[in-house]
Amino acid sequence: MKLKPLGDRLIVRAIEEEEKTASGLVLPDTAKEKPQKGEVIAVGDGRYDEDGEKRIPLDVSQGDTVLYSKYGGTEIKVDGEDLLVLRESDVLAKVEN
Amino acid sequence: MKLKPLGDRLIVRAIEEEEKTASGLVLPDTAKEKPQKGEVIAVGDGRYDEDGEKRIPLDVSQGDTVLYSKYGGTEIKVDGEDLLVLRESDVLAKVEN
Amino acid sequence: MKLKPLGDRLIVRAIEEEEKTASGLVLPDTAKEKPQKGEVIAVGDGRYDEDGEKRIPLDVSQGDTVLYSKYGGTEIKVDGEDLLVLRESDVLAKVEN
Amino acid sequence: MKLKPLGDRLIVRAIEEEEKTASGLVLPDTAKEKPQKGEVIAVGDGRYDEDGEKRIPLDVSQGDTVLYSKYGGTEIKVDGEDLLVLRESDVLAKVEN
Amino acid sequence: MKLKPLGDRLIVRAIEEEEKTASGLVLPDTAKEKPQKGEVIAVGDGRYDEDGEKRIPLDVSQGDTVLYSKYGGTEIKVDGEDLLVLRESDVLAKVEN
Amino acid sequence: MKLKPLGDRLIVRAIEEEEKTASGLVLPDTAKEKPQKGEVIAVGDGRYDEDGEKRIPLDVSQGDTVLYSKYGGTEIKVDGEDLLVLRESDVLAKVEN
Amino acid sequence: MKLKPLGDRLIVRAIEEEEKTASGLVLPDTAKEKPQKGEVIAVGDGRYDEDGEKRIPLDVSQGDTVLYSKYGGTEIKVDGEDLLVLRESDVLAKVEN
Repeated sequence: MKLKPLGDRLIVRAIEEEEKTASGLVLPDTAKEKPQKGEVIAVGDGRYDEDGEKRIPLDVSQGDTVLYSKYGGTEIKVDGEDLLVLRESDVLAKVEN
Repeated sequence: MKLKPLGDRLIVRAIEEEEKTASGLVLPDTAKEKPQKGEVIAVGDGRYDEDGEKRIPLDVSQGDTVLYSKYGGTEIKVDGEDLLVLRESDVLAKVEN
Repeated sequence: MKLKPLGDRLIVRAIEEEEKTASGLVLPDTAKEKPQKGEVIAVGDGRYDEDGEKRIPLDVSQGDTVLYSKYGGTEIKVDGEDLLVLRESDVLAKVEN
Repeated sequence: MKLKPLGDRLIVRAIEEEEKTASGLVLPDTAKEKPQKGEVIAVGDGRYDEDGEKRIPLDVSQGDTVLYSKYGGTEIKVDGEDLLVLRESDVLAKVEN
Repeated sequence: MKLKPLGDRLIVRAIEEEEKTASGLVLPDTAKEKPQKGEVIAVGDGRYDEDGEKRIPLDVSQGDTVLYSKYGGTEIKVDGEDLLVLRESDVLAKVEN
Repeated sequence: MKLKPLGDRLIVRAIEEEEKTASGLVLPDTAKEKPQKGEVIAVGDGRYDEDGEKRIPLDVSQGDTVLYSKYGGTEIKVDGEDLLVLRESDVLAKVEN
Repeated sequence: MKLKPLGDRLIVRAIEEEEKTASGLVLPDTAKEKPQKGEVIAVGDGRYDEDGEKRIPLDVSQGDTVLYSKYGGTEIKVDGEDLLVLRESDVLAKVEN
């Protein structure tokens, strides 16, 4: 199922990072914080400006890695996979290589 | 009864997906989450821009399949059928084929 | 008493629909939900745009049948009849014939 | 004391209507609802538009009879008389003759 | 100490009116309501419009007598005298002679 | 350490006034109200207007004495001295000499 | 990992100042207030104006030292280091040398 986010929304697939304690122990999933880094897998065309004349382009593109606020967005399940629909304002920063 | 939503509203008929547990058991209706995928059956003409000069067109059209926020919208019953009136801002994404 | 709503308001006379249970029993009035379908009996001239230069016309007209949010509006009693003053934003959809 | 309301405000003198019960009994004052019909006795010149260039004229004039929201406005006592200062947005409708 | 209010603010000196009960008894100060009539002793130059291009002039001038909302404003003590700093939106009406 | 406030902010050094009771007794510091008069020691360049084209200049300048709302602003400690960062909207009035 | 903040956001590395009590005792970390002074290590390109035509430039640049509100921003951990993502409106003042 291919999704096209509306307006200033984007869809993100969380990137879970291995988390080791100081002693090298890998923590099981439930002891970890909800991830806040993800890969952008789809972006909207931008919301309309106040005069309804043109769309304001998004600053993130498909394929970008982004940091996002842990408490923003709506969780959806697509083809058995957990994804997150965010508004661009929930994105804190892009990761540059 | 044919309905024409006002402004930036649309009317959606929920699509209930069969939901099986890992063991293949089909869950009865009350054990399932409220659906959040639906078919757009009517759309408004868009709300006026701030100057009242033209309408801002909607990004969804009749016949589209959309994902929407589970907590948005107003439930209505039309000809015995449960439908949902949403604002376009409650729509998260369109499903593309 | 003839009323002219102000700005983006309209006045609605609720349409009560006969409601029968599965067994064909007609429910007495107190057991029914508050109606959310009504006939528009008067409309305002629209609110001014942000520059105060022209009014934004309403999408509903006198004589329209509308669905409206059950929790919006202000109840008034006019010549012994219960009516409802709504803002146009409380109207969900028009019923088309 | 003559009052000139500011901006989009108006001053209203409530019109109390005789209220009889079905049996014809006139209810004493404390058993009646707070009135919501009134005569406009003064209006402001309108608030400025967003650019501060001109005022947005009011839709009600001195002498109009209006219905207004029971919970809006500020009560004032002028020369021993109870009056109400409303914003135009608290006015639901004008009564036309 | 001479004060110049900022933006859309004004400074008001409350006018206390003698209040007699029906029996002619003058009530001591603590039994009276907080005054809501005052003399304007200083006005600001108005707030800037949204484009920052010009100020929106105030509708009240120094020397005006105004009615104001009892719950608005900030009390200040200037040279031992209790004054009130209001925004113009807290002023309900001007008293005309 | 020299500070430059951002946007429509200013930095104020509170002016504590000697406060004597009627009997001439000078009250110790803890019995006094938080001061609300101060000297402006730095001002921002003003916030941008809505179109991002120019800044809206502040109405207060370095060296001004201002009255400000007791509950606004953020306390900072600079070189051991307690200062207050205010937005211009927290300033009630300028003191003129 | 290099980060590019979005819109009007910036990333700040807190500057912890040694804090001695009057007796010269250095307080351990937990007894100190959360720092509110930091170095700007990355800035966004500014948010779009209301017409979506151009970005409003930020007043802070990479390398600036800023004072910021203790309660604003979102904490992130980057390469093991605690950083803070702020909106420019959370920045109170720049430190000038």
